[in-house]
Amino acid sequence: MPRARIEFWYEFGSTYSYPAAMRIGGLAAARDVAVVWRPFLLGPIFRAQGWADTPFNALPAKGRNMWRDVERICARDGLAFRKPDPFPQHTILAARMALALEDAARPDFTRAVYVAEFGEGRQIADRAVIADILTRLGHDAGARLAQAETPANKEALKAQTQRAIDIGVYGAPSLVCADGELFWGNDRLEQALDWALAPGLVRA
Amino acid sequence: MPRARIEFWYEFGSTYSYPAAMRIGGLAAARDVAVVWRPFLLGPIFRAQGWADTPFNALPAKGRNMWRDVERICARDGLAFRKPDPFPQHTILAARMALALEDAARPDFTRAVYVAEFGEGRQIADRAVIADILTRLGHDAGARLAQAETPANKEALKAQTQRAIDIGVYGAPSLVCADGELFWGNDRLEQALDWALAPGLVRA
Repeated sequence: MPRARIEFWYEFGSTYSYPAAMRIGGLAAARDVAVVWRPFLLGPIFRAQGWADTPFNALPAKGRNMWRDVERICARDGLAFRKPDPFPQHTILAARMALALEDAARPDFTRAVYVAEFGEGRQIADRAVIADILTRLGHDAGARLAQAETPANKEALKAQTQRAIDIGVYGAPSLVCADGELFWGNDRLEQALDWALAPGLVRA
Repeated sequence: MPRARIEFWYEFGSTYSYPAAMRIGGLAAARDVAVVWRPFLLGPIFRAQGWADTPFNALPAKGRNMWRDVERICARDGLAFRKPDPFPQHTILAARMALALEDAARPDFTRAVYVAEFGEGRQIADRAVIADILTRLGHDAGARLAQAETPANKEALKAQTQRAIDIGVYGAPSLVCADGELFWGNDRLEQALDWALAPGLVRA
């Protein structure tokens, strides 16, 4: 039995979800916290806010600094980094596939998609790229992709995204503790994991 | 001679600028980095982006989590915290006053305004509150406020805000190193100060 559990909400198009996905496994294991991996889609949330595009494209100064910041973070963390082209990628196939996988297979698939997208510049909207990732992980790619594209799984991803909204998620990555405490951003990973173990405001 | 210098760009309405303003003095002194305090206004930048209000008001889920996040940060840092009402406060008088002060007086005035606003819930748009802060710091409040409101100082604040835009600032707090490297956010204080001393991507 782990000492606590935390939900890790991520979107495959989210730049900061890449280092977060690569870091959370080790950080959580070191604290004996179980991670529940929750892929969802930011697109519907952004559109509901009236945004036609990610703020990183809509606001050039913000976008420029985000790319530089992610480059600095990846350099620090020892992660390869290439800006995806186009950005954002269409992420619905990858999100459906991640959701359709059993819990034990989801973390490795998720990390492999992020590395392909942000480390190698591959097109994750491309079915052949997702199939290749699945094959390399030892899955039967055709069977897995068929699972991803069942009507039930498509509905499950919609429901998962709605649940994200219902619990207050508005960006990615987000961390949600068992008591409902929400943390947003790769910057908050350690703080969220610490909260999962010992909820409550730290009084200095 | 300090080993390096860094520009600290802040807006008095910015929630995360509060802990940043309280932390930067000690962190910079420990590294022998000189801080150049640069008050500016975010309002014109937001309006140029087509925003009528701060995203923390326009996007309720984002706003709720920001307030909680700032509360957590202040608890950790040992800072008093009260949500200003109204939020955001009108900050033009405080910004003009901060700019008009000589460099040596600006940090203490800045910290006192943030404590009044986010620690004590005082109305920093109120001339009497600013006068009280000045008096407590040993200034001649009437004379100082007159300096803040000269046409030349009003123009200087406009020019300072334009310079912020010109160097890529789009939010607060922002840190700008001598080589132009820009960091955004209270989260990036340590990283920015380290960059000021040793510019370049850290390769893990």
